[in-house]
Amino acid sequence: MNPLEIPEIVIRRLPLYLRALNLLTEQGQVVTSSQELGERLGISSTQIRKDLSYFGEFGKQGTGYDVRYLAEQLRQILQVNRTWNLVLIGAGDLGRAIARYNGFERGGFSIVAVLDRDKQKIGNQVGQLRIQDIAQLPDVLRQHHVQIAIIAVPPDEAQGVANLLVKNGIRAILSYAHITMPADVRIQHIDPVVGLQSMTYYLVPTQP
Amino acid sequence: MNPLEIPEIVIRRLPLYLRALNLLTEQGQVVTSSQELGERLGISSTQIRKDLSYFGEFGKQGTGYDVRYLAEQLRQILQVNRTWNLVLIGAGDLGRAIARYNGFERGGFSIVAVLDRDKQKIGNQVGQLRIQDIAQLPDVLRQHHVQIAIIAVPPDEAQGVANLLVKNGIRAILSYAHITMPADVRIQHIDPVVGLQSMTYYLVPTQP
Repeated sequence: MNPLEIPEIVIRRLPLYLRALNLLTEQGQVVTSSQELGERLGISSTQIRKDLSYFGEFGKQGTGYDVRYLAEQLRQILQVNRTWNLVLIGAGDLGRAIARYNGFERGGFSIVAVLDRDKQKIGNQVGQLRIQDIAQLPDVLRQHHVQIAIIAVPPDEAQGVANLLVKNGIRAILSYAHITMPADVRIQHIDPVVGLQSMTYYLVPTQP
Repeated sequence: MNPLEIPEIVIRRLPLYLRALNLLTEQGQVVTSSQELGERLGISSTQIRKDLSYFGEFGKQGTGYDVRYLAEQLRQILQVNRTWNLVLIGAGDLGRAIARYNGFERGGFSIVAVLDRDKQKIGNQVGQLRIQDIAQLPDVLRQHHVQIAIIAVPPDEAQGVANLLVKNGIRAILSYAHITMPADVRIQHIDPVVGLQSMTYYLVPTQP
């Protein structure tokens, strides 16, 4: 099947499956089922089996999935069985928290540079990296073959930064503030409100 | 339909629809379609219509959806046409960035307290709030009728904090580190790797 014919919503669930499988691996579990994954993720087992069936046969009826094998297959499908270089734009509270997050390497990513426009911040150390001037962006992207960026600047600066990134060849952006992009650039937003709003449906409001 | 019979995966998409509708409202758009929402969100128009049909008829064939009306209906369904009090645990880089995020009020949430166990941080100001001692958690939760918490502590402290929250009556947790919870507590994780991994599928790896 042509990779672009698989619905994007299916692709977006694969990293959730992969994360659940990584946790099962850590817990020493060898075999799992679509039922177990489904319960952990709040996704129906039918949906999980249907999603995986786009890519082949990963388990046998009745015996379930080999946790490590399925994880490895998902890493291959998502192309994270390699390391992608990333740049992080913004070295404020959020940027520093992201720079120190230790899940990137394992997920297939390496932050190669943190850039900011604030002269007060440039030159300071954050984790293993020294904050660089945003003016160095073109050089950094070329030198490290970077296609992916994370935007962690204030909301009113985000669109300008995004435009600059795309102009310099970035193909995928993870942004903590809302931005719009041409259709040929991938974009994912991280918004805590979206996570919170998917839980309030289930709560019983109390009288304050 | 019994609210619990609607698949959770459908509920989780509603906040995405709501966010897209809020942006359309800001841009002054009055009417939209499942096609337009779908293109903005990378979700098929069929899926969007199917999701919304669980809750009623929100648009007419051929004339599309009234942006403000549909947004208001979604806010009602998600119970965010009111304000939920939140507590934020962790006042490090990430916690401070979250405390300063200005999208909560509009989304239906109000951070009523930021708590930390670090004596160096307690008493400091972050945004409008003074950082409180985690020991005050039970009082704070009772006083403000809080059911929802955000966890922004280091990964190795997250599970302990989560257990404490649940023991004190918290029903829903948004966590930036992995935690597990009893089935009757709602949990959502925020993980930048999941967002990044849903984009790499579409990229063409370059030779580093």
